[in-house]
Amino acid sequence: MKRLLAIVVLTVGLSYAQAPKDSKPASSNVPGAEYPRIHSDLRVTFQLTAPGAQKVQLMPGGADNGLGKGPIDMAKDAKGVWTVTTQPAVPGFHYYWFILDGFAANDPGSETFFGWGKQCSGVEVPEQGVDFYDARDVPHGEVRVRVYRARTTGEWRRAYVYTPPDYDRSTQRYPVLYLQHGAGENETTWSKQGRANLILDNLIAERKAVPMIVVMDRGYATKPGAVAVAGAGGTPRLPNAFEELLLNDLIPTIDSTYRTIADRDHRAMAGLSMGGSQTLQITLAHLNLFAWIGSFSAPLRNFDVKTAYNGVFNDPAAFNKQVRLLWIGAGTLEPSMYQGAQTMHQGLDQAGIRHVFFESKGTSHEFQTWRRSLHDFAARLFRQ
Amino acid sequence: MKRLLAIVVLTVGLSYAQAPKDSKPASSNVPGAEYPRIHSDLRVTFQLTAPGAQKVQLMPGGADNGLGKGPIDMAKDAKGVWTVTTQPAVPGFHYYWFILDGFAANDPGSETFFGWGKQCSGVEVPEQGVDFYDARDVPHGEVRVRVYRARTTGEWRRAYVYTPPDYDRSTQRYPVLYLQHGAGENETTWSKQGRANLILDNLIAERKAVPMIVVMDRGYATKPGAVAVAGAGGTPRLPNAFEELLLNDLIPTIDSTYRTIADRDHRAMAGLSMGGSQTLQITLAHLNLFAWIGSFSAPLRNFDVKTAYNGVFNDPAAFNKQVRLLWIGAGTLEPSMYQGAQTMHQGLDQAGIRHVFFESKGTSHEFQTWRRSLHDFAARLFRQ
Repeated sequence: MKRLLAIVVLTVGLSYAQAPKDSKPASSNVPGAEYPRIHSDLRVTFQLTAPGAQKVQLMPGGADNGLGKGPIDMAKDAKGVWTVTTQPAVPGFHYYWFILDGFAANDPGSETFFGWGKQCSGVEVPEQGVDFYDARDVPHGEVRVRVYRARTTGEWRRAYVYTPPDYDRSTQRYPVLYLQHGAGENETTWSKQGRANLILDNLIAERKAVPMIVVMDRGYATKPGAVAVAGAGGTPRLPNAFEELLLNDLIPTIDSTYRTIADRDHRAMAGLSMGGSQTLQITLAHLNLFAWIGSFSAPLRNFDVKTAYNGVFNDPAAFNKQVRLLWIGAGTLEPSMYQGAQTMHQGLDQAGIRHVFFESKGTSHEFQTWRRSLHDFAARLFRQ
Repeated sequence: MKRLLAIVVLTVGLSYAQAPKDSKPASSNVPGAEYPRIHSDLRVTFQLTAPGAQKVQLMPGGADNGLGKGPIDMAKDAKGVWTVTTQPAVPGFHYYWFILDGFAANDPGSETFFGWGKQCSGVEVPEQGVDFYDARDVPHGEVRVRVYRARTTGEWRRAYVYTPPDYDRSTQRYPVLYLQHGAGENETTWSKQGRANLILDNLIAERKAVPMIVVMDRGYATKPGAVAVAGAGGTPRLPNAFEELLLNDLIPTIDSTYRTIADRDHRAMAGLSMGGSQTLQITLAHLNLFAWIGSFSAPLRNFDVKTAYNGVFNDPAAFNKQVRLLWIGAGTLEPSMYQGAQTMHQGLDQAGIRHVFFESKGTSHEFQTWRRSLHDFAARLFRQ
């Protein structure tokens, strides 16, 4: 009997050793999953049971994504449980996966988040004292899945549409922000990884943002019968007809379905990374349609204010009169995007183009940068 | 030069061999993923690149799920690509994963679907001539993510709420169906795997169903400070406070947020598997709140019409007057659930309890059974 008791105590002891008291399951875990766990100093412990594997590594999704430089070796115990604890992580949402004898495997303990062209694992590391993207005790809007037929592509698509808290109770019409994800992501990304709906709920509750509709669609569109053409590095790619889809299908669908104010003064577009490039390309070629523009961490290489975007910046007086907000931002820990944004900022300054330049301190090419970007950008929108 | 050409041709030849002309990528794949592929005879080819793995198997999620009995060995080629083609599959949605040297890994080519307590891979096998759950050229309703505070659990929860196509344009009030998932699933399941919204869109367009609101929440709720008690097989489990949450938080939230008709004659509840058991437990104990009841493939063991549900069936005249619809269904290929439903059906018949008994022919404990169940059940709801 004493022997049995000893074994039980030992088991409990081991269990405590694996799940230290100063840590708790990440909020991004599926219900009941104990790992990954976040420690009070923001170290993160990952764990995976794979007795048959010879080598397992933790792979942060992206360089400098806040979890450390990957791949990171994990250690196996006698039961085939692989564990690693990272250094204190940068706060925010981080994509990750495990490399299991060379195979990129999701963590069964994590929710999945569409990024990198597939459903990935992700871990939410809280930022102390920061709750602008948390569910708080304020009125909440909705994210609505809007199924619609797109003539450009001949397909049924779905847009994710945020409607503000008072939408159903009022007869008011609202301005609209079109908000785009990055490469390899989709229409679910901004609400799931980015928490765009909670950011807007909180801003609106604090009267820091005007109530607005936010439309999140997939930034990829392929026309029927499209033929691949050489893309970056010569790789054949199908041409992306997203601009055509946005202008000819999505905006008309939104304006005919929701109580929008359907003019340029009440229409904004912003996007992160690839979505930022799309935003600049599309809005600066269609200033008759958009008056509010946001680029979050777009790749902005070789920016020349004289020639960029078909010379749109060559008449600063006209541009400043027409464009209500041009917003350029990046994180200080994403060197290429940050330098690109700074170069554009300086070029715009020299040319006398009014704009906002935003830095997210200590964050990389990641959602903490983009949550902060949306928080700053959305608060400036649709002001008189 | 000739040698190089030969190699190129060989590669193309192999590529065709891997992706036969009579097959196409499953609609449940992520964009661009070529596998799994559905053949014209409904065989399914799965493929995974894992050169470092010693053994890879396809694991259908559940016994007799239509893909065959697992685990099914996959064959490795010289490049480390593992492939298997199944026998012709039963149409419908099937959970699956790969077993990679003993580790249950998702397929990076598949979307993920919450089931089995985690995000799983899934494959959609079309049923010839059947489109009642497809996106068709009809008016579409919305699935809305409703964030709400639940006092029962002290947590922020989200319910998925289907509103019918004309909801925003009318001032009409609507009846409500509370629709529950099975064990290990969640609030996303009925719209993602089950396509409840498309089934309702199509029924409403054909005037086969009354426009209604459908509420899909997570059928698990844990009260703060809850202590585990012995569950099935003695395993300690936290008590599930879903009934309390539904009655005290969810229904009041829905009735105060949406234009519902908030009485028993316009309130239905149904669920699949565990959700069917919850439906019978909750509705038959609260007939003052629900007049329409659906059990889809619930585990109904040892049903005795005299003692079941606290003797609710002992006064058939009163029951038949009070309950507008009692609907019991199962698939013919899920022996335990089918026998349970038949036993209940016979007991109800003998007792003179009016009800509908529904068989889904040739389908198992799977979503094709439950899509058909919802299609039949929803069409009967809220009729005078």
